[in-house]
Amino acid sequence: MTSAQFDFAPLLPAGLPAPAAKWTGLAKYSFVGGNNDPAEVPVDGLIEAVNAVLKREGKTLATYGLASGPQGYRPLREFLTGKLKRDAGIDCVADDILIVSGSLQALDLVNQSLLAHGDTVVIEQDTYQGSLNRLIRLGVNVVGIPLDDRGMRMDALAEALADLERRRITPKYIYTIPTVQNPTGTIMPEGRRAELLKLSQQYGVPIFEDDCYADLIWDGKRPPALYAMSNNGGVIHIGSFSKSIAPALRVGFIVAPWQMLSRMLALKTDAGSGALEQMVLAEYCAPHFTSHVPKLTRGLRAKLDTLMEALNEQFGTAAEFEDPKGGIFLWVKLPDNVDTLKLYQSALAAGVAINPGPEWSTDKAYARSRLRLCFASPSHEQIREGVAVLADVCRREFGVPARSANVEKRTRT
Amino acid sequence: MTSAQFDFAPLLPAGLPAPAAKWTGLAKYSFVGGNNDPAEVPVDGLIEAVNAVLKREGKTLATYGLASGPQGYRPLREFLTGKLKRDAGIDCVADDILIVSGSLQALDLVNQSLLAHGDTVVIEQDTYQGSLNRLIRLGVNVVGIPLDDRGMRMDALAEALADLERRRITPKYIYTIPTVQNPTGTIMPEGRRAELLKLSQQYGVPIFEDDCYADLIWDGKRPPALYAMSNNGGVIHIGSFSKSIAPALRVGFIVAPWQMLSRMLALKTDAGSGALEQMVLAEYCAPHFTSHVPKLTRGLRAKLDTLMEALNEQFGTAAEFEDPKGGIFLWVKLPDNVDTLKLYQSALAAGVAINPGPEWSTDKAYARSRLRLCFASPSHEQIREGVAVLADVCRREFGVPARSANVEKRTRT
Repeated sequence: MTSAQFDFAPLLPAGLPAPAAKWTGLAKYSFVGGNNDPAEVPVDGLIEAVNAVLKREGKTLATYGLASGPQGYRPLREFLTGKLKRDAGIDCVADDILIVSGSLQALDLVNQSLLAHGDTVVIEQDTYQGSLNRLIRLGVNVVGIPLDDRGMRMDALAEALADLERRRITPKYIYTIPTVQNPTGTIMPEGRRAELLKLSQQYGVPIFEDDCYADLIWDGKRPPALYAMSNNGGVIHIGSFSKSIAPALRVGFIVAPWQMLSRMLALKTDAGSGALEQMVLAEYCAPHFTSHVPKLTRGLRAKLDTLMEALNEQFGTAAEFEDPKGGIFLWVKLPDNVDTLKLYQSALAAGVAINPGPEWSTDKAYARSRLRLCFASPSHEQIREGVAVLADVCRREFGVPARSANVEKRTRT
Repeated sequence: MTSAQFDFAPLLPAGLPAPAAKWTGLAKYSFVGGNNDPAEVPVDGLIEAVNAVLKREGKTLATYGLASGPQGYRPLREFLTGKLKRDAGIDCVADDILIVSGSLQALDLVNQSLLAHGDTVVIEQDTYQGSLNRLIRLGVNVVGIPLDDRGMRMDALAEALADLERRRITPKYIYTIPTVQNPTGTIMPEGRRAELLKLSQQYGVPIFEDDCYADLIWDGKRPPALYAMSNNGGVIHIGSFSKSIAPALRVGFIVAPWQMLSRMLALKTDAGSGALEQMVLAEYCAPHFTSHVPKLTRGLRAKLDTLMEALNEQFGTAAEFEDPKGGIFLWVKLPDNVDTLKLYQSALAAGVAINPGPEWSTDKAYARSRLRLCFASPSHEQIREGVAVLADVCRREFGVPARSANVEKRTRT
């Protein structure tokens, strides 16, 4: 026998994603991902909750699914029924909810239960990278619908659905993030939601509603969920505790008719999602959720203000953006000659991590000079410094922002 | 618009598993699944650990992957390097380890990174149901190798590999649970492990070593892991905290060469496994693992004794089994006329849940009259009562155990 290293390469199936690179740590100025504000993690409250729930029910950890079965810790589902009714107008019972390991598992379960290679889905043109990547990996055709300041455009959706019908294609679902859209930060008004539901019914295409960011709204006001407004049960609704409590706790949920929930439950072969995280969330959220979230959003709004001020100061008119209604990210347009995929590389070398636009859009040309900046994780100081470094990199690589733009902007304001 | 219910059925892709049934609670006498002894969950130690780690690092929950990156909480990986060296002879560093959401996610990641529809793998004839079901769902051909009291038989493996080679089929891996085999409870001796490694190298087929149950050995002694004995890196090793600490904490791990770990990491698109569970395990296990496990196994051994006594008393010679060297389950042979798939239904109606043999074997005829009984979760009293009920059901449905068998057995002992 030789001691030559075993080569796995000949055994790998076709179509695998590229191997992951070794992790090299967080960037000095990190504006990427859905990370949240460390200062706002309710550590004391979580400690109190975990002590109480482990003392009371710790021994149930010996059983898969605790005493609650495969749909997840029942007190957490009970909390959610109240929360969803109060915040999103959703009438449901604990048995309509499946707790999952973060809303990413929800995406996987919905996709596995509905999609096959070659299928078509309709999604927002600019959308969550994780959703887009999953569809591409599954070999699904995506039809992107442009957005405006009220979310997905219904004229464009109607046209796309009619066009697909002419081509005898029935899309498997319409995926939308209607409440604090990612990355644009818009909220779809109730009237447009009604139009969306009408189109869904007219064409027999269900809606996949991703409400992951819906808790983080500056004025706390939101329209009812599409799930709540639907009168035919053709909506699958997902949500998460990642944005409202802490992303490293991997807990999300699906609300759906049992016809679909039973399919997803059959595909959820992980012997349950992490029980301790479900237990501590239920114990903490029942008394504290409604007071925690407004405190969190006030802090996030302050960070957004810092980010927008820093962009105005450093980029002047060269950085365009809308003031989002909530969330943790800002979708920024730079001058047309800026290729944010290139900027990403140069910025990272300078210690600034950004999400380049083309990774968050079905329209690569449109998104070429756009980027997403998450402002929740860096401190106010890091936001100001990071934006300054980013502006320097931009100037060096692309000649923008011109110094004059800053001056002009400063003079104007 | 009508308010008729939306029908998802026309949208479902081919090949979905049957929809899940609604959960109806745990059976009164539950001998199924990998549930553990509630009395042995180290609740006080976990509470102490979670307080310490949250006070120190709670704010890091705001960041996906904490400060450790996508391979998992570094202190847990550091604990594992020490544990794996001490217990299994494995030399590895933290970067060789990927923390996953239970070893079931490890199965999925290994399968996704190596298997395509139509591939062939070699597995133990009697094996873990979750592994078998995954392969069947993936459309993979399984070649089952019979076991004896020292695990997978090498003569049968050599023959199967030679046969596949003649048919120009290269299996993608040889899956084995060498240390406390599930369901047979055997431990493969070091000499046979060397033979297995030799065959693996000779045929160019890697080994997939599932060491999930390896912590639970009555005398605490085990041979080195196949991963440790390999001299060519052709082994992927997985393990879990489900059996040693608590199954509802969904934390497992993969140890593999970076060539494969980087592939699996690229497929792990869940934004990390639950951080709180990783943190509390690291904090608890570092000081307490080596004292907790022997206490746990003493309790399990006592329950096994109760189960074997109850079977002898209730079934007499009609129930045949080996005394397993560790673990949480007993693999039982009933008389040939007992169909355990039918017994499963009748027993459940009487409040006794069992795992019927055919679900745990590639050889349905061989396993027809066999069943797996997990003894960790029920109390001593429940074990005795549950076995009595099971014997009554068996007698009623299949005429066994005959009353005479009991008497005969009692007279003999």
